[in-house]
Amino acid sequence: MVHVQAGRSLMVRLPKAELHGVLDDPALESIEFLNEIMTRYPDAISFAPGAPHPRFVKDLDVSDCIDVYTRHVSVLRGTTQAHEHRRLLEYGPSRGLINDLIADALSKDHGLDLSPDSVVVTVGAQEAMLLTLRVLCRPGRDLLAVADPCFTGVTGAARLLDIGIVPIAETEHGLDHDALAAACRAARQRGRTVRAVYAAPDHSNPSGSVMTLRARHQLLSVAEREKLLVIEDNAYGFTAAPGHELPLLKALDTDGRVILVGTFAKVCTPGARVGFAVADQVVADADGSHRVLAGHLAAAKNAVTVNTSPISQAIIGGMLLRNNGSIKQLGQEKSAHYRERLAVLLAALDRSLPSGTRPEGVRWNRPRGGFFVRLRLPVPVDVALLEQCAQQFGVLWTPMSYFHLGDGGGNELRLSCSYLSSQEIREGARRLAAFVHHATASTGEQP
Amino acid sequence: MVHVQAGRSLMVRLPKAELHGVLDDPALESIEFLNEIMTRYPDAISFAPGAPHPRFVKDLDVSDCIDVYTRHVSVLRGTTQAHEHRRLLEYGPSRGLINDLIADALSKDHGLDLSPDSVVVTVGAQEAMLLTLRVLCRPGRDLLAVADPCFTGVTGAARLLDIGIVPIAETEHGLDHDALAAACRAARQRGRTVRAVYAAPDHSNPSGSVMTLRARHQLLSVAEREKLLVIEDNAYGFTAAPGHELPLLKALDTDGRVILVGTFAKVCTPGARVGFAVADQVVADADGSHRVLAGHLAAAKNAVTVNTSPISQAIIGGMLLRNNGSIKQLGQEKSAHYRERLAVLLAALDRSLPSGTRPEGVRWNRPRGGFFVRLRLPVPVDVALLEQCAQQFGVLWTPMSYFHLGDGGGNELRLSCSYLSSQEIREGARRLAAFVHHATASTGEQP
Repeated sequence: MVHVQAGRSLMVRLPKAELHGVLDDPALESIEFLNEIMTRYPDAISFAPGAPHPRFVKDLDVSDCIDVYTRHVSVLRGTTQAHEHRRLLEYGPSRGLINDLIADALSKDHGLDLSPDSVVVTVGAQEAMLLTLRVLCRPGRDLLAVADPCFTGVTGAARLLDIGIVPIAETEHGLDHDALAAACRAARQRGRTVRAVYAAPDHSNPSGSVMTLRARHQLLSVAEREKLLVIEDNAYGFTAAPGHELPLLKALDTDGRVILVGTFAKVCTPGARVGFAVADQVVADADGSHRVLAGHLAAAKNAVTVNTSPISQAIIGGMLLRNNGSIKQLGQEKSAHYRERLAVLLAALDRSLPSGTRPEGVRWNRPRGGFFVRLRLPVPVDVALLEQCAQQFGVLWTPMSYFHLGDGGGNELRLSCSYLSSQEIREGARRLAAFVHHATASTGEQP
Repeated sequence: MVHVQAGRSLMVRLPKAELHGVLDDPALESIEFLNEIMTRYPDAISFAPGAPHPRFVKDLDVSDCIDVYTRHVSVLRGTTQAHEHRRLLEYGPSRGLINDLIADALSKDHGLDLSPDSVVVTVGAQEAMLLTLRVLCRPGRDLLAVADPCFTGVTGAARLLDIGIVPIAETEHGLDHDALAAACRAARQRGRTVRAVYAAPDHSNPSGSVMTLRARHQLLSVAEREKLLVIEDNAYGFTAAPGHELPLLKALDTDGRVILVGTFAKVCTPGARVGFAVADQVVADADGSHRVLAGHLAAAKNAVTVNTSPISQAIIGGMLLRNNGSIKQLGQEKSAHYRERLAVLLAALDRSLPSGTRPEGVRWNRPRGGFFVRLRLPVPVDVALLEQCAQQFGVLWTPMSYFHLGDGGGNELRLSCSYLSSQEIREGARRLAAFVHHATASTGEQP
């Protein structure tokens, strides 16, 4: 044992051979790396974080939200507001406190017909995904299918739980359902079971794909045929332009295949860390009894976070109540804002990298919702290039290879427009253009 | 597929064969059962929950705590308080925001010399245990040793992660260290590795055991010899009588063996859901680089809850700042309160079940700290008996068998004094005595 003096602390060096586990998981390490590089280049314009814009939280009055919620509940239950306030400072049920408000909002916004018992309130959508994966899949045995590229939150959770991941190619309209069916068959032939598929049908992170109505029905057919559960992530659904919203998979689901996971980070505030899972499937037990799947998620939650902070839930509950109990209404102003920022980013790229002088092989997609644009370069896009771009050009982004499970994405980067002002986006695009010219020129010189 | 109308919701019944995982985990189900039975008997006096007494939170002013914290940080950083307030409403680093306050408190209270980098702020001690187990143990391969009986939070987390559990017998002074060493050897002979041991040296839940100073040193010796990491849970340490506190294992640890997990639920409020892990071990990488183990926990946290609510952290931070940055000071009044309640419970049992008329085989331990008393009966103590006791005698408790990994605890129940008033404890003890007489008499009649 070597003793290392690190900071004020006498630390003991343990050989890595004594420590295994998630230590080297690339999905988890990549998130840490992005956090870290942003602190190293605080003056860089960062297209990296998919975080909501701070303007939407700056006037948020936490006490007022709690007050609105406790007043509502005390009237409903015939208790005093002081009593309900005190309850927020104690433990609460693992399934949650604001389940009825969430069920009502999903009914109002998406036409779902849900009992509050089928909702579990979680510490962000991240915990909802972790719990769902663990309840559906046996560690070391069952498999999860995901689109490739995929949000690192879901692949990270699967890796944490030792659940095998099956990457499925994406078409323009999201998950390739024929490839999904083929992957299920192939797994069966190896004696394994693909138990669930993760899908983000609306402006997915990172690819930006939107599933057509036809593609949604096709995915549900495959799920029914292959006995898959579908984990639907609707984080970016609220950014769809009015009149262009498509129904949730959950709203089209007649065979009990879909578990919906959601987050309040984007439409309310990330600071509360509140999300949810809707799992209204009834699980028949060997003895003939049955229980809603959400009850199993709540049981598993006892081993992860016990319960979601009642204070945090009250903040979200108050925000919902102030907005007619509608998540859609909560997201309306933000939706318009993000679409406008996306338009600003696309226009700035057009202006800074006009088709006449744009280096060959440089192109980007043109999403109509979500937070993200993918930019393709004719050179390898990796961590070394990111470091160079940050240092020399003062701009940050995310290599798309972070989101790919195979070798894909090696020439792409992801730009997020959500956290920046229009001015920052325009200046960022100018810096990006200078970087693109430099990167493509220098590669040309050093083949 | 059968469609079941449950409440307002059209639910789909899925055969259980399609759903596996934690669904039937006894440790998790038992917590759910206890929650559920308390709602079924709302008028029963419940000795079941190990929750802190509501009197300590009833006057807690959440906004004031947040205000104290943001003022402190803005002065420290030379920013505005509004800026720091807004930061609480955004995402935060996965390692946490109040790491420095926690490191300083542990230095002040326990003489630990810690860098803030070795602290991870978690959603309760539960998430701290889950992250620690996952970073130390490979699912499906490595083993965790625990005292038998054991807190269900840690066994639940191990089961969720598919980490095998090795039960170790308890002596009066906690974990039997000879049995622990023997279990490590036995595992090695089977080609498996016991990677870590969970220990709660101070008034453990549920057994109430306290490790002597000698036993603490012996446990650390075994850990060093067998290359075990020790996960120390200090949840009830604050209830020790002044002058009877023993040093943390972490404070005696010279070989970097101990990871400390802690909770603010008992000394601050459960409603914030804030805990922490201290993992200051330096992990040497294959390439010669090294990283503090806490950094690996923070990376894993990205796959569980991403980050702990900054609002919740500010509430705890404010409470710490209002108490000279000392967790011990935060717990002082509560410590005296709980010791008094424990004395009330023991006196009430003495009075309601006096040695003269007490049925043979009825006895209980006499702990001097913690929240719990174990009561032994000459009859099997199971869920059926609990249900009967709740229905006929209006009193609830926890079967000790819930905490045992083997067949132990079948004749014991756990009484918690923390949540009740002295009057409720006395009335509860009277009801309990009536129940004990009934249960022992009726078993006599029906052998």
